[in-house]
Amino acid sequence: MIQDIVSDQTGGVAVTSYTIAVIGGTGPQGRGLAYRWARHGHEVVLGSRSAEKAVPVAHEVADRIRAEGGAPLVSGASNADAAAAADVVVLAVPYAGHDELVASLAEQLAGKVVISCVNPLGFDKVGPYGLDLERSAAESAAALVPTASVVGAFHHVSAPTLWSEVEYLDHEDVLVCGDSAEAKSVAVELARSVTSRPGVDAGALRLARQLEPLTAVLISINKSYKIRSGIRISGL
Amino acid sequence: MIQDIVSDQTGGVAVTSYTIAVIGGTGPQGRGLAYRWARHGHEVVLGSRSAEKAVPVAHEVADRIRAEGGAPLVSGASNADAAAAADVVVLAVPYAGHDELVASLAEQLAGKVVISCVNPLGFDKVGPYGLDLERSAAESAAALVPTASVVGAFHHVSAPTLWSEVEYLDHEDVLVCGDSAEAKSVAVELARSVTSRPGVDAGALRLARQLEPLTAVLISINKSYKIRSGIRISGL
Repeated sequence: MIQDIVSDQTGGVAVTSYTIAVIGGTGPQGRGLAYRWARHGHEVVLGSRSAEKAVPVAHEVADRIRAEGGAPLVSGASNADAAAAADVVVLAVPYAGHDELVASLAEQLAGKVVISCVNPLGFDKVGPYGLDLERSAAESAAALVPTASVVGAFHHVSAPTLWSEVEYLDHEDVLVCGDSAEAKSVAVELARSVTSRPGVDAGALRLARQLEPLTAVLISINKSYKIRSGIRISGL
Repeated sequence: MIQDIVSDQTGGVAVTSYTIAVIGGTGPQGRGLAYRWARHGHEVVLGSRSAEKAVPVAHEVADRIRAEGGAPLVSGASNADAAAAADVVVLAVPYAGHDELVASLAEQLAGKVVISCVNPLGFDKVGPYGLDLERSAAESAAALVPTASVVGAFHHVSAPTLWSEVEYLDHEDVLVCGDSAEAKSVAVELARSVTSRPGVDAGALRLARQLEPLTAVLISINKSYKIRSGIRISGL
Protein backbone atom coordinates (compact mmCIF):
# COMPACT_ATOMS: atom_id res chain seq x y z
CA MET A 1 0.00 0.00 0.00
CA ILE A 2 2.79 2.39 0.82
CA GLN A 3 4.15 3.50 -2.50
CA ASP A 4 7.13 5.57 -1.70
CA ILE A 5 8.68 8.01 0.70
CA VAL A 6 8.78 11.39 -0.96
CA SER A 7 9.44 14.91 0.07
CA ASP A 8 6.31 16.84 0.97
CA GLN A 9 6.24 19.65 -1.56
CA THR A 10 4.88 22.29 0.77
CA GLY A 11 6.77 21.63 3.94
CA GLY A 12 9.80 19.61 2.91
CA VAL A 13 8.84 16.93 5.39
CA ALA A 14 9.16 13.30 4.40
CA VAL A 15 5.71 11.74 4.30
CA THR A 16 4.16 8.48 3.27
CA SER A 17 2.94 8.79 -0.29
CA TYR A 18 -0.06 6.92 -1.64
CA THR A 19 -1.56 6.39 -5.04
CA ILE A 20 -5.11 7.58 -4.53
CA ALA A 21 -8.00 7.09 -6.92
CA VAL A 22 -10.74 9.65 -6.46
CA ILE A 23 -13.93 8.14 -7.83
CA GLY A 24 -16.17 11.03 -8.78
CA GLY A 25 -13.04 13.12 -9.04
CA THR A 26 -14.59 15.58 -11.44
CA GLY A 27 -17.17 16.71 -8.90
CA PRO A 28 -16.35 19.66 -6.63
CA GLN A 29 -15.61 17.54 -3.53
CA GLY A 30 -13.47 15.07 -5.45
CA ARG A 31 -11.57 17.76 -7.31
CA GLY A 32 -10.92 19.66 -4.07
CA LEU A 33 -9.62 16.60 -2.25
CA ALA A 34 -7.50 15.60 -5.27
CA TYR A 35 -5.94 19.06 -5.25
CA ARG A 36 -5.08 18.87 -1.56
CA TRP A 37 -3.54 15.42 -1.83
CA ALA A 38 -1.64 16.04 -5.07
CA ARG A 39 -0.04 19.21 -3.73
CA HIS A 40 1.24 17.19 -0.78
CA GLY A 41 3.02 14.62 -2.92
CA HIS A 42 0.43 11.92 -3.29
CA GLU A 43 -0.18 10.49 -6.75
CA VAL A 44 -3.81 11.04 -7.66
CA VAL A 45 -5.86 9.37 -10.38
CA LEU A 46 -9.10 11.22 -10.96
CA GLY A 47 -11.89 8.89 -11.97
CA SER A 48 -15.04 9.69 -13.86
CA ARG A 49 -17.59 7.87 -15.99
CA SER A 50 -15.15 8.19 -18.88
CA ALA A 51 -11.48 9.05 -19.11
CA GLU A 52 -12.47 11.86 -21.50
CA LYS A 53 -14.34 13.57 -18.69
CA ALA A 54 -11.62 12.97 -16.11
CA VAL A 55 -8.55 14.08 -18.06
CA PRO A 56 -9.44 17.79 -18.38
CA VAL A 57 -10.08 18.05 -14.64
CA ALA A 58 -6.80 16.27 -13.93
CA HIS A 59 -5.09 18.88 -16.11
CA GLU A 60 -6.87 21.65 -14.23
CA VAL A 61 -5.65 20.32 -10.88
CA ALA A 62 -2.12 19.70 -12.14
CA ASP A 63 -1.88 23.12 -13.79
CA ARG A 64 -2.94 24.82 -10.60
CA ILE A 65 -0.35 23.00 -8.51
CA ARG A 66 2.41 23.65 -11.06
CA ALA A 67 1.47 27.34 -11.04
CA GLU A 68 1.97 27.19 -7.28
CA GLY A 69 5.43 25.74 -7.78
CA GLY A 70 4.66 22.08 -7.26
CA ALA A 71 5.32 18.99 -9.38
CA PRO A 72 2.07 17.07 -9.13
CA LEU A 73 1.36 13.51 -10.18
CA VAL A 74 -2.23 13.72 -11.36
CA SER A 75 -3.95 11.82 -14.14
CA GLY A 76 -7.48 11.10 -15.29
CA ALA A 77 -9.10 7.76 -16.08
CA SER A 78 -12.39 5.94 -16.08
CA ASN A 79 -13.57 5.09 -12.59
CA ALA A 80 -12.65 1.44 -13.10
CA ASP A 81 -9.17 2.19 -14.41
CA ALA A 82 -8.60 4.74 -11.66
CA ALA A 83 -9.60 2.27 -8.96
CA ALA A 84 -7.47 -0.46 -10.51
CA ALA A 85 -4.41 1.79 -10.51
CA ALA A 86 -4.64 2.85 -6.86
CA ASP A 87 -4.00 1.46 -3.41
CA VAL A 88 -6.42 3.83 -1.75
CA VAL A 89 -9.77 4.49 -3.41
CA VAL A 90 -11.83 7.48 -2.36
CA LEU A 91 -15.55 7.45 -3.09
CA ALA A 92 -16.57 11.07 -3.69
CA VAL A 93 -19.77 10.45 -5.58
CA PRO A 94 -23.39 11.48 -5.09
CA TYR A 95 -25.47 9.01 -3.13
CA ALA A 96 -27.85 8.55 -6.04
CA GLY A 97 -26.49 5.53 -7.90
CA HIS A 98 -23.87 4.88 -5.21
CA ASP A 99 -24.61 1.22 -4.64
CA GLU A 100 -24.71 0.40 -8.37
CA LEU A 101 -21.42 2.19 -8.94
CA VAL A 102 -19.68 0.45 -6.04
CA ALA A 103 -20.99 -2.92 -7.17
CA SER A 104 -19.69 -2.27 -10.68
CA LEU A 105 -16.23 -1.56 -9.21
CA ALA A 106 -16.21 -4.53 -6.83
CA GLU A 107 -13.33 -6.23 -8.65
CA GLN A 108 -11.14 -3.11 -8.59
CA LEU A 109 -11.95 -2.29 -4.94
CA ALA A 110 -11.35 -5.80 -3.61
CA GLY A 111 -8.74 -5.87 -0.87
CA LYS A 112 -8.12 -2.13 -0.91
CA VAL A 113 -8.54 0.74 1.49
CA VAL A 114 -11.74 2.50 0.45
CA ILE A 115 -12.54 5.91 1.92
CA SER A 116 -16.16 6.97 1.58
CA CYS A 117 -16.99 10.69 1.68
CA VAL A 118 -20.53 10.04 0.52
CA ASN A 119 -23.33 12.06 2.11
CA PRO A 120 -26.80 10.57 1.61
CA LEU A 121 -28.81 13.79 1.87
CA GLY A 122 -32.16 14.99 0.71
CA PHE A 123 -33.33 18.56 0.16
CA ASP A 124 -36.84 19.95 0.28
CA LYS A 125 -38.41 23.34 0.99
CA VAL A 126 -37.53 23.01 4.70
CA GLY A 127 -33.86 22.48 3.86
CA PRO A 128 -31.36 19.64 3.89
CA TYR A 129 -31.90 16.41 5.78
CA GLY A 130 -30.31 13.00 6.14
CA LEU A 131 -31.97 10.28 4.12
CA ASP A 132 -33.69 7.61 6.18
CA LEU A 133 -31.52 4.60 5.38
CA GLU A 134 -31.04 1.21 6.94
CA ARG A 135 -27.30 1.65 6.77
CA SER A 136 -24.83 4.35 5.88
CA ALA A 137 -23.29 4.68 2.44
CA ALA A 138 -19.97 3.55 3.90
CA GLU A 139 -21.57 0.43 5.36
CA SER A 140 -23.22 -0.27 2.01
CA ALA A 141 -19.84 -0.12 0.30
CA ALA A 142 -18.42 -2.48 2.90
CA ALA A 143 -21.28 -4.90 2.36
CA LEU A 144 -20.90 -4.76 -1.43
CA VAL A 145 -17.13 -5.34 -1.32
CA PRO A 146 -16.48 -7.44 1.79
CA THR A 147 -12.74 -7.74 1.18
CA ALA A 148 -12.27 -3.96 1.05
CA SER A 149 -11.36 -2.08 4.22
CA VAL A 150 -13.90 0.71 4.16
CA VAL A 151 -13.67 3.85 6.26
CA GLY A 152 -15.84 6.95 6.32
CA ALA A 153 -14.05 10.32 6.33
CA PHE A 154 -13.88 13.80 4.77
CA HIS A 155 -17.67 14.21 4.84
CA HIS A 156 -17.63 17.70 6.34
CA VAL A 157 -14.92 19.61 4.50
CA SER A 158 -16.59 21.96 2.06
CA ALA A 159 -15.73 21.71 -1.62
CA PRO A 160 -15.26 25.47 -2.16
CA THR A 161 -12.89 25.65 0.80
CA LEU A 162 -10.89 22.66 -0.45
CA TRP A 163 -10.43 24.44 -3.79
CA SER A 164 -9.78 27.82 -2.16
CA GLU A 165 -6.51 29.64 -1.52
CA VAL A 166 -6.29 28.68 2.16
CA GLU A 167 -3.13 26.77 2.99
CA TYR A 168 -4.93 24.39 5.32
CA LEU A 169 -8.45 23.98 6.65
CA ASP A 170 -6.81 24.24 10.04
CA HIS A 171 -9.92 25.21 11.97
CA GLU A 172 -11.54 21.91 11.05
CA ASP A 173 -11.19 18.26 11.94
CA VAL A 174 -11.58 15.27 9.67
CA LEU A 175 -13.57 12.60 11.48
CA VAL A 176 -12.70 9.04 10.50
CA CYS A 177 -14.75 5.95 11.29
CA GLY A 178 -14.09 2.37 10.37
CA ASP A 179 -13.62 -1.17 11.59
CA SER A 180 -10.08 -1.64 10.25
CA ALA A 181 -7.40 0.09 12.29
CA GLU A 182 -5.00 0.00 9.34
CA ALA A 183 -7.48 1.58 6.94
CA LYS A 184 -8.40 4.19 9.50
CA SER A 185 -4.74 5.08 9.92
CA VAL A 186 -4.51 5.80 6.17
CA ALA A 187 -7.43 8.24 6.32
CA VAL A 188 -6.09 9.76 9.54
CA GLU A 189 -2.78 10.36 7.73
CA LEU A 190 -4.41 11.71 4.56
CA ALA A 191 -6.26 14.29 6.65
CA ARG A 192 -2.92 16.02 7.24
CA SER A 193 -2.93 17.28 3.64
CA VAL A 194 -6.27 18.94 4.30
CA THR A 195 -6.27 20.26 7.86
CA SER A 196 -2.51 20.10 8.71
CA ARG A 197 -3.39 17.69 11.51
CA PRO A 198 -4.11 13.98 11.66
CA GLY A 199 -7.74 13.00 11.34
CA VAL A 200 -9.72 12.09 14.43
CA ASP A 201 -10.55 8.44 15.05
CA ALA A 202 -14.30 8.70 15.59
CA GLY A 203 -14.94 5.01 16.15
CA ALA A 204 -16.61 2.11 14.38
CA LEU A 205 -17.82 2.10 10.79
CA ARG A 206 -21.44 2.09 11.87
CA LEU A 207 -20.93 5.62 13.20
CA ALA A 208 -20.93 6.70 9.55
CA ARG A 209 -24.69 6.72 10.12
CA GLN A 210 -24.02 9.78 12.25
CA LEU A 211 -21.16 11.36 10.31
CA GLU A 212 -22.78 11.25 6.87
CA PRO A 213 -26.03 13.09 7.60
CA LEU A 214 -24.30 15.56 9.91
CA THR A 215 -23.47 17.32 6.67
CA ALA A 216 -27.16 18.33 6.52
CA VAL A 217 -26.64 20.28 9.75
CA LEU A 218 -23.59 22.04 8.34
CA ILE A 219 -25.41 22.97 5.13
CA SER A 220 -28.26 24.31 7.22
CA ILE A 221 -25.83 26.42 9.26
CA ASN A 222 -24.16 27.61 6.06
CA LYS A 223 -27.48 28.87 4.75
CA SER A 224 -28.45 30.64 7.98
CA TYR A 225 -25.11 32.28 8.69
CA LYS A 226 -23.83 32.62 5.12
CA ILE A 227 -20.58 30.84 5.97
CA ARG A 228 -18.76 27.66 5.03
CA SER A 229 -18.90 25.75 8.26
CA GLY A 230 -16.93 22.75 9.35
CA ILE A 231 -16.61 20.56 12.42
CA ARG A 232 -13.96 20.91 15.07
CA ILE A 233 -13.69 18.56 18.01
CA SER A 234 -12.98 20.47 21.21
CA GLY A 235 -10.96 18.94 24.00
CA LEU A 236 -8.39 17.23 21.76
CA MET B 1 -42.13 33.81 29.26
CA ILE B 2 -39.64 36.50 30.17
CA GLN B 3 -39.67 36.65 33.93
CA ASP B 4 -37.48 39.53 34.80
CA ILE B 5 -34.46 41.52 33.86
CA VAL B 6 -31.74 40.81 36.37
CA SER B 7 -28.07 41.45 36.71
CA ASP B 8 -25.90 38.61 35.50
CA GLN B 9 -24.06 37.51 38.61
CA THR B 10 -20.81 36.70 36.91
CA GLY B 11 -20.47 39.53 34.44
CA GLY B 12 -22.73 42.25 35.70
CA VAL B 13 -24.48 42.35 32.34
CA ALA B 14 -28.24 42.68 32.26
CA VAL B 15 -29.72 39.50 30.79
CA THR B 16 -33.13 38.03 30.24
CA SER B 17 -33.94 35.73 33.12
CA TYR B 18 -36.11 32.65 32.78
CA THR B 19 -37.68 30.22 35.18
CA ILE B 20 -36.34 26.91 33.92
CA ALA B 21 -37.54 23.47 34.96
CA VAL B 22 -34.93 20.79 34.45
CA ILE B 23 -36.76 17.49 34.17
CA GLY B 24 -34.30 14.82 35.18
CA GLY B 25 -32.46 17.50 37.09
CA THR B 26 -30.89 15.05 39.49
CA GLY B 27 -28.96 13.30 36.72
CA PRO B 28 -25.45 14.51 35.89
CA GLN B 29 -26.46 16.37 32.71
CA GLY B 30 -29.45 18.04 34.34
CA ARG B 31 -27.52 18.99 37.46
CA GLY B 32 -24.70 20.43 35.39
CA LEU B 33 -27.01 22.53 33.22
CA ALA B 34 -28.96 23.67 36.29
CA TYR B 35 -25.72 24.83 37.88
CA ARG B 36 -24.71 26.82 34.79
CA TRP B 37 -28.09 28.51 34.47
CA ALA B 38 -28.58 29.24 38.17
CA ARG B 39 -25.18 30.86 38.49
CA HIS B 40 -26.14 33.19 35.66
CA GLY B 41 -29.27 34.45 37.34
CA HIS B 42 -31.93 32.13 35.98
CA GLU B 43 -34.39 30.61 38.41
CA VAL B 44 -34.12 26.83 38.22
CA VAL B 45 -36.54 24.20 39.46
CA LEU B 46 -34.94 20.78 39.50
CA GLY B 47 -37.43 18.07 38.75
CA SER B 48 -37.25 14.40 39.66
CA ARG B 49 -39.62 11.51 40.17
CA SER B 50 -40.28 12.86 43.64
CA ALA B 51 -39.60 16.18 45.31
CA GLU B 52 -37.70 14.25 47.99
CA LYS B 53 -35.14 13.19 45.41
CA ALA B 54 -34.91 16.63 43.82
CA VAL B 55 -34.55 18.82 46.90
CA PRO B 56 -31.12 17.54 48.05
CA VAL B 57 -29.67 18.08 44.58
CA ALA B 58 -31.16 21.57 44.46
CA HIS B 59 -29.44 22.25 47.77
CA GLU B 60 -26.17 20.91 46.38
CA VAL B 61 -26.37 23.23 43.37
CA ALA B 62 -27.41 26.22 45.45
CA ASP B 63 -24.71 25.62 48.07
CA ARG B 64 -22.05 25.47 45.41
CA ILE B 65 -23.14 28.74 43.82
CA ARG B 66 -23.40 30.46 47.20
CA ALA B 67 -19.88 29.26 48.02
CA GLU B 68 -18.81 30.93 44.79
CA GLY B 69 -20.40 34.20 45.92
CA GLY B 70 -23.67 33.94 44.03
CA ALA B 71 -27.29 34.19 45.19
CA PRO B 72 -28.97 31.36 43.32
CA LEU B 73 -32.67 30.71 42.92
CA VAL B 74 -32.80 26.91 42.87
CA SER B 75 -35.47 24.59 44.19
CA GLY B 76 -36.47 20.97 43.85
CA ALA B 77 -39.86 19.52 42.99
CA SER B 78 -41.55 16.58 41.35
CA ASN B 79 -41.19 16.63 37.59
CA ALA B 80 -44.83 17.66 37.20
CA ASP B 81 -44.59 20.49 39.74
CA ALA B 82 -41.29 21.65 38.27
CA ALA B 83 -42.74 21.77 34.75
CA ALA B 84 -45.85 23.55 35.98
CA ALA B 85 -43.77 26.25 37.68
CA ALA B 86 -41.58 27.06 34.69
CA ASP B 87 -41.80 28.87 31.39
CA VAL B 88 -38.97 26.89 29.85
CA VAL B 89 -38.84 23.14 30.44
CA VAL B 90 -35.63 21.25 29.75
CA LEU B 91 -35.85 17.51 29.19
CA ALA B 92 -32.61 16.02 30.51
CA VAL B 93 -33.77 12.46 30.96
CA PRO B 94 -32.57 9.10 29.67
CA TYR B 95 -34.26 7.98 26.47
CA ALA B 96 -35.61 4.86 28.14
CA GLY B 97 -39.08 5.85 29.31
CA HIS B 98 -38.86 9.23 27.57
CA ASP B 99 -42.14 9.05 25.68
CA GLU B 100 -44.11 7.86 28.70
CA LEU B 101 -42.65 10.63 30.86
CA VAL B 102 -43.37 13.35 28.29
CA ALA B 103 -46.92 12.06 27.82
CA SER B 104 -47.44 12.14 31.58
CA LEU B 105 -46.34 15.80 31.61
CA ALA B 106 -48.39 16.86 28.58
CA GLU B 107 -50.62 19.16 30.61
CA GLN B 108 -47.69 20.96 32.24
CA LEU B 109 -45.72 21.24 28.99
CA ALA B 110 -48.61 22.55 26.90
CA GLY B 111 -47.85 25.89 25.28
CA LYS B 112 -44.32 26.11 26.69
CA VAL B 113 -40.82 26.20 25.31
CA VAL B 114 -39.44 22.68 25.73
CA ILE B 115 -35.73 22.07 25.22
CA SER B 116 -34.78 18.45 24.68
CA CYS B 117 -31.21 17.35 25.47
CA VAL B 118 -32.16 13.69 25.15
CA ASN B 119 -29.69 11.35 23.45
CA PRO B 120 -31.21 8.06 22.29
CA LEU B 121 -28.07 5.95 22.42
CA GLY B 122 -27.25 2.30 22.72
CA PHE B 123 -24.06 0.69 23.95
CA ASP B 124 -22.65 -2.71 23.14
CA LYS B 125 -19.21 -4.30 23.04
CA VAL B 126 -18.33 -2.28 19.92
CA GLY B 127 -19.15 0.96 21.68
CA PRO B 128 -21.85 3.61 21.60
CA TYR B 129 -24.28 4.01 18.73
CA GLY B 130 -27.40 5.95 17.86
CA LEU B 131 -30.60 3.99 18.26
CA ASP B 132 -32.44 3.26 15.03
CA LEU B 133 -35.57 5.34 15.51
CA GLU B 134 -38.28 6.60 13.22
CA ARG B 135 -37.99 10.05 14.74
CA SER B 136 -35.75 11.84 17.19
CA ALA B 137 -36.58 12.19 20.87
CA ALA B 138 -37.22 15.90 20.29
CA GLU B 139 -39.68 15.13 17.49
CA SER B 140 -41.39 12.58 19.73
CA ALA B 141 -41.85 15.22 22.41
CA ALA B 142 -43.26 17.61 19.81
CA ALA B 143 -45.69 14.96 18.60
CA LEU B 144 -46.78 14.12 22.15
CA VAL B 145 -47.34 17.76 23.11
CA PRO B 146 -48.34 19.55 19.91
CA THR B 147 -48.86 22.94 21.56
CA ALA B 148 -45.34 22.98 23.01
CA SER B 149 -42.54 24.66 21.07
CA VAL B 150 -39.88 21.97 21.15
CA VAL B 151 -36.25 22.55 20.34
CA GLY B 152 -33.26 20.23 20.53
CA ALA B 153 -30.11 21.62 22.16
CA PHE B 154 -27.34 20.95 24.70
CA HIS B 155 -26.85 17.36 23.54
CA HIS B 156 -23.07 17.55 23.30
CA VAL B 157 -21.91 19.35 26.43
CA SER B 158 -20.45 16.79 28.79
CA ALA B 159 -21.90 16.46 32.26
CA PRO B 160 -18.52 16.40 34.07
CA THR B 161 -17.42 19.55 32.26
CA LEU B 162 -20.67 21.32 33.10
CA TRP B 163 -20.09 20.55 36.78
CA SER B 164 -16.38 21.37 36.60
CA GLU B 165 -14.50 24.48 37.64
CA VAL B 166 -14.20 25.92 34.14
CA GLU B 167 -15.78 29.35 33.84
CA TYR B 168 -17.26 28.61 30.42
CA LEU B 169 -17.16 25.74 27.96
CA ASP B 170 -15.85 28.32 25.55
CA HIS B 171 -14.27 25.89 23.12
CA GLU B 172 -17.66 24.37 22.38
CA ASP B 173 -20.82 25.34 20.56
CA VAL B 174 -24.37 24.53 21.54
CA LEU B 175 -26.28 23.46 18.43
CA VAL B 176 -29.98 24.32 18.48
CA CYS B 177 -32.61 22.91 16.15
CA GLY B 178 -36.32 23.59 16.06
CA ASP B 179 -39.27 24.75 14.04
CA SER B 180 -40.20 27.72 16.24
CA ALA B 181 -37.93 30.73 15.84
CA GLU B 182 -39.02 32.08 19.22
CA ALA B 183 -38.27 28.84 21.04
CA LYS B 184 -34.94 28.51 19.28
CA SER B 185 -34.02 32.03 20.38
CA VAL B 186 -34.57 31.00 24.02
CA ALA B 187 -32.17 28.06 23.70
CA VAL B 188 -29.71 30.19 21.74
CA GLU B 189 -29.77 32.69 24.61
CA LEU B 190 -29.49 30.04 27.34
CA ALA B 191 -26.36 28.70 25.67
CA ARG B 192 -24.57 31.87 26.78
CA SER B 193 -24.55 30.63 30.37
CA VAL B 194 -22.73 27.51 29.21
CA THR B 195 -20.32 28.52 26.45
CA SER B 196 -20.25 32.34 26.87
CA ARG B 197 -21.60 32.61 23.32
CA PRO B 198 -25.06 32.33 21.80
CA GLY B 199 -26.05 28.88 20.59
CA VAL B 200 -25.85 28.08 16.90
CA ASP B 201 -29.09 27.83 14.94
CA ALA B 202 -28.62 24.44 13.31
CA GLY B 203 -31.93 24.35 11.45
CA ALA B 204 -35.21 22.50 11.58
CA LEU B 205 -36.38 20.22 14.40
CA ARG B 206 -35.97 17.15 12.24
CA LEU B 207 -32.21 17.70 12.32
CA ALA B 208 -32.39 16.48 15.92
CA ARG B 209 -32.13 13.08 14.18
CA GLN B 210 -28.56 14.10 13.46
CA LEU B 211 -27.73 16.04 16.62
CA GLU B 212 -28.92 13.45 19.13
CA PRO B 213 -26.89 10.41 17.99
CA LEU B 214 -23.84 12.55 17.26
CA THR B 215 -23.24 12.15 20.97
CA ALA B 216 -22.29 8.54 20.24
CA VAL B 217 -19.41 9.84 18.12
CA LEU B 218 -18.25 12.14 20.92
CA ILE B 219 -18.39 9.33 23.49
CA SER B 220 -16.40 7.14 21.11
CA ILE B 221 -13.77 9.88 20.75
CA ASN B 222 -13.71 10.36 24.51
CA LYS B 223 -12.90 6.69 24.99
CA SER B 224 -10.17 6.61 22.35
CA TYR B 225 -8.43 9.83 23.32
CA LYS B 226 -9.30 9.90 27.03
CA ILE B 227 -10.74 13.40 26.77
CA ARG B 228 -14.08 15.13 27.21
CA SER B 229 -14.83 16.17 23.69
CA GLY B 230 -17.33 18.67 22.42
CA ILE B 231 -18.42 20.14 19.11
CA ARG B 232 -17.25 23.45 17.71
CA ILE B 233 -18.53 24.83 14.44
CA SER B 234 -15.69 26.32 12.41
CA GLY B 235 -16.27 29.26 10.11
CA LEU B 236 -18.62 31.14 12.42
